Amino acid sequence: MAIVQTELYLIRHGIATERGTYENDGDRPLTAKGIQRTEAMVKRLWQLGLQFDAVLTSPLVRAQQTADILVRVGLAANVETFGALKPGGQLTDWLAWLDWWQGHRAQGRVALIGHEPDLSDWGQRLVTGEGGDRWVLKKAGVIGLMLPAAEVALGQSELFWLSSPRLLLGQGLTFG
Amino acid sequence: MAIVQTELYLIRHGIATERGTYENDGDRPLTAKGIQRTEAMVKRLWQLGLQFDAVLTSPLVRAQQTADILVRVGLAANVETFGALKPGGQLTDWLAWLDWWQGHRAQGRVALIGHEPDLSDWGQRLVTGEGGDRWVLKKAGVIGLMLPAAEVALGQSELFWLSSPRLLLGQGLTFG
Repeated sequence: MAIVQTELYLIRHGIATERGTYENDGDRPLTAKGIQRTEAMVKRLWQLGLQFDAVLTSPLVRAQQTADILVRVGLAANVETFGALKPGGQLTDWLAWLDWWQGHRAQGRVALIGHEPDLSDWGQRLVTGEGGDRWVLKKAGVIGLMLPAAEVALGQSELFWLSSPRLLLGQGLTFG
Repeated sequence: MAIVQTELYLIRHGIATERGTYENDGDRPLTAKGIQRTEAMVKRLWQLGLQFDAVLTSPLVRAQQTADILVRVGLAANVETFGALKPGGQLTDWLAWLDWWQGHRAQGRVALIGHEPDLSDWGQRLVTGEGGDRWVLKKAGVIGLMLPAAEVALGQSELFWLSSPRLLLGQGLTFG
């Protein structure tokens, strides 16, 4: 029997306009700098040879725009909007999707485009079984996890990557 | 009163000769490939602007050689050999050193050069309060943590970086 495992990439949307600049928070778009840095990050993922078999995104504009950059740069053929990825969504809703997806393919790479503090909390749940706020996921940053079968992924997954755009692209480090 | 915090980098030694090739395991040196990949990784850290205020290394040859590369590339002025960093060392011994060091400087950057599974277990203890084997730290890979004061660092630290040389340097990704 094939070993079921999924490489999961949790990607936070890029820098968006300030809170309060739009009546509906979900309408806030990426800024020019946000688009530029997100494109640079995604191009670097492309250089690393990364390709996704599925990309799910939060329905909010800043996440959709981030996901569109992934497709434009060539990391994925298409993107699916997934309601459970909006702020405050439930990991269990996504795990139900994963269970279905793993039933179709034994293994592969999935990217989720979403929001903090949800994504890093989900990562911690997958690795330790408990949520938390001690992983720092910057805008356009990435977390890489190796998941076993969806029904046992909580507390049984491995963390192999966590990086900000700055630490991947080399725009200089400042302390603190 | 100054906020006490330390940026901690846990760096695993590079690829060494196979186990059993030396009578004393601690004498195993880095291979030619190990030296080359470690140098490439360390040069990348240098390009990112990283400088360490203190570097402590395990006394084993493969760790010492890795630490020497940090000095040669210019990431640190000198290296101190620290017995607690040998395989099976105790995090509490290092935390006692950190307590002393933080007493001299309110903040700064420290690198520890050591071994698996100890380094990633220490990282997990610092972030969650409990050890574990679910963080993947490859040879010459790096973990970046932000620590508060030494006496409360266990379970109170933040993870901001975890990367293999491959994911930093872009030598191509393969699944699994």
